[in-house]
Amino acid sequence: MEMHFGTEIILLAEQLAGHSDDAEALTVAYLSRAHQTAGAEIAGWMIGAGLQVRIDAVGNVIGRYPAADADAPVLMTGSHFDTVRDGGRYDGRLGILAPIVVARHLHQTGERLPFHLDVVAFAEEEGLRFHTSFLSSSAIVGQFDYSRLLNRDADGVSLVEAMHAAGLPGTDAAIAACAVDPQRLLGFIEVHIEQGPVLLDRDLPLGVVSSIAGSVRRRITVTGTASHAGTTPMAMRRDALTAAAEVVLAVERRCADPRHADRALVGTVGTLAVPQGATNVVPGRCVFSLDVRAADDATRDAAIADLDAEFQRIARQRGVELDLSETMRVPCAACSPQLRQRLAASVAAAGVPVLELPSGAGHDAMVLARITEVGMLFVRCGNGGISHNPLETMAAGDADIAARVLLDFLRRTAAGVSG
Amino acid sequence: MEMHFGTEIILLAEQLAGHSDDAEALTVAYLSRAHQTAGAEIAGWMIGAGLQVRIDAVGNVIGRYPAADADAPVLMTGSHFDTVRDGGRYDGRLGILAPIVVARHLHQTGERLPFHLDVVAFAEEEGLRFHTSFLSSSAIVGQFDYSRLLNRDADGVSLVEAMHAAGLPGTDAAIAACAVDPQRLLGFIEVHIEQGPVLLDRDLPLGVVSSIAGSVRRRITVTGTASHAGTTPMAMRRDALTAAAEVVLAVERRCADPRHADRALVGTVGTLAVPQGATNVVPGRCVFSLDVRAADDATRDAAIADLDAEFQRIARQRGVELDLSETMRVPCAACSPQLRQRLAASVAAAGVPVLELPSGAGHDAMVLARITEVGMLFVRCGNGGISHNPLETMAAGDADIAARVLLDFLRRTAAGVSG
Repeated sequence: MEMHFGTEIILLAEQLAGHSDDAEALTVAYLSRAHQTAGAEIAGWMIGAGLQVRIDAVGNVIGRYPAADADAPVLMTGSHFDTVRDGGRYDGRLGILAPIVVARHLHQTGERLPFHLDVVAFAEEEGLRFHTSFLSSSAIVGQFDYSRLLNRDADGVSLVEAMHAAGLPGTDAAIAACAVDPQRLLGFIEVHIEQGPVLLDRDLPLGVVSSIAGSVRRRITVTGTASHAGTTPMAMRRDALTAAAEVVLAVERRCADPRHADRALVGTVGTLAVPQGATNVVPGRCVFSLDVRAADDATRDAAIADLDAEFQRIARQRGVELDLSETMRVPCAACSPQLRQRLAASVAAAGVPVLELPSGAGHDAMVLARITEVGMLFVRCGNGGISHNPLETMAAGDADIAARVLLDFLRRTAAGVSG
Repeated sequence: MEMHFGTEIILLAEQLAGHSDDAEALTVAYLSRAHQTAGAEIAGWMIGAGLQVRIDAVGNVIGRYPAADADAPVLMTGSHFDTVRDGGRYDGRLGILAPIVVARHLHQTGERLPFHLDVVAFAEEEGLRFHTSFLSSSAIVGQFDYSRLLNRDADGVSLVEAMHAAGLPGTDAAIAACAVDPQRLLGFIEVHIEQGPVLLDRDLPLGVVSSIAGSVRRRITVTGTASHAGTTPMAMRRDALTAAAEVVLAVERRCADPRHADRALVGTVGTLAVPQGATNVVPGRCVFSLDVRAADDATRDAAIADLDAEFQRIARQRGVELDLSETMRVPCAACSPQLRQRLAASVAAAGVPVLELPSGAGHDAMVLARITEVGMLFVRCGNGGISHNPLETMAAGDADIAARVLLDFLRRTAAGVSG
């Protein structure tokens, strides 16, 4: 089977990328026509792989490779098939396609597992159309926010209207029925491209995820005094932008401190603007975003606390006002030590040095972690680790190793369940 | 005459502010209807003050308080009556109104001068409508750029069309005839509000301008690599915004160096943007402006050279690319030592401590300096020194002292010409 898995995954991903809302780019928004045909194609592949397929009330496509015993526990795996605008073809999809090709192999060779293997193609993770990130995993864990049914897309179509148009019931009861029974779950495992440069940099095809970072996001406004750039002496300025520049560098300095590097602390100012700014005017106002993440909440929150103190010091010293409003706070999700260990054993068995690394990006596994043990396997990205971009790449050889590690992991899990 | 000059100047400025292109704000764009009626009102005041009035081909309103001898030399004074959008009522206009009330006093008391006093109400300085800053002073010095006649306003009207609509000939020959003969000029003196906080801070009503700063402006683009804010470790980033923040602070640090404070060095990043920035994306590109000024070109250019070297060091260290394009370079204009000295004597005679200060803003005097000796008198602004804004204020008492100093200056000049 050498390389068969990898080549097949690449070909399937290419075929799946044929479904797009845009002619020129890969965009699959939740419940769009392309989204529905992509889901149907995935369902077809699952059936071809010998899986029992159902589509739930939020559009998740779930294929089961059943155990002999109907009352057997369930191991769930999967990822999402919606995309960002002009996205890449492996983000999310690898975590659907790798389990499908592995399940087909099991089916074709007649190898049975002592648990139901549920391969979930999550319908919505990116939040592109209705600003509803993790919509389908939240339904699976029974924590769907029903108020989101009234969210509207850019054309004014509500989420519930889009569900009806796609043939989904769109009722609270139907959505509540998407929830799985945590008592029956052995855990959730997600294969995903890294979407970053670490594995590429370490020359490793795979890595085992230790935890999934949760973000704290801030919208920060600095208010100084706008004044004439020619006539206001440097010592008499209350420049909002120079204060913001000091904040930007404070974020970088605190988060790049090597003492925290092993906790994957990252801090980013991704947007910054000087409203009503002009070349010859000292900036009176500056607005920017802050996103801080780490492998654990304590590391992240300690950084936030240090930064808040530093921001206040900067504001006092410069005589400007600072407004810090928190726009998002998502807790970190630790991966299960047992699943990490088992994944690491499978990686080592494939002859790959084991690297554990945190995930800086959010994933469906982060939501599943609320009800079950989760594990994640990262696969190397090419092109400097770029993702959410058409330049996203993955080598067939790396996809192949990932699928073989997943197969080995299933067998190890089977040994544990049987033994 | 105690306070008469000041009160009258304030009342005239209030009346002049009645001419506006906007109902809710003071906006007088070159050759607009409000601009033409404002010019006509000024001409009327000049006639009432006993001046011989002419309007030249670019709309400058020039009132002469004639010497007895028709061949006498000319002392020119004045400033502009156009405004920025939603501007203040004293910017420019003080330098027209103060000479008018002083000339009327001379006329009413029968006091003659041994030179022609030409009070020039410059029609265009701000560049609001046709992006033609200093248009009318450049015509006066015979350096009008005729290509500007094809500039169009936001409605598509060309400058030459606007001239025709305002009854001006709009021909090259007519505009060339606006030029004055430098051989006949004794010099040019401009009274202007400071548009900054220095006099307010020093508790002084007046200051003598030492030189008028010229700007060097840059448009700077930093190019790094956009990447995922969650998955790109701090050490692997090429963040365009943190590099820009370092540049912003380098500008501040270099220009605020106390060793250069007496040369009025100022550096400003007034606009900054992160194109295509998002909260969860490490900035790949950052674009900002830089404006550096000083009392003399050498101080300014030394700062620019140091900053360029520092910018290159930052770019190298951070592995980002830097594009520095110069968008403007205006040389500084030194005020004439003789006129400074004479103004200082008049200021001292008024019982005001003499403060010499450079002008960070550009003024008509900067253009006149190309053909004659210039001097400027700054008058204190209220409200923290704010200008180009409806909050711009000036005290009647300060305007009064300014007018009396101007009168004293004319008498000292007369003594010099006669003696």
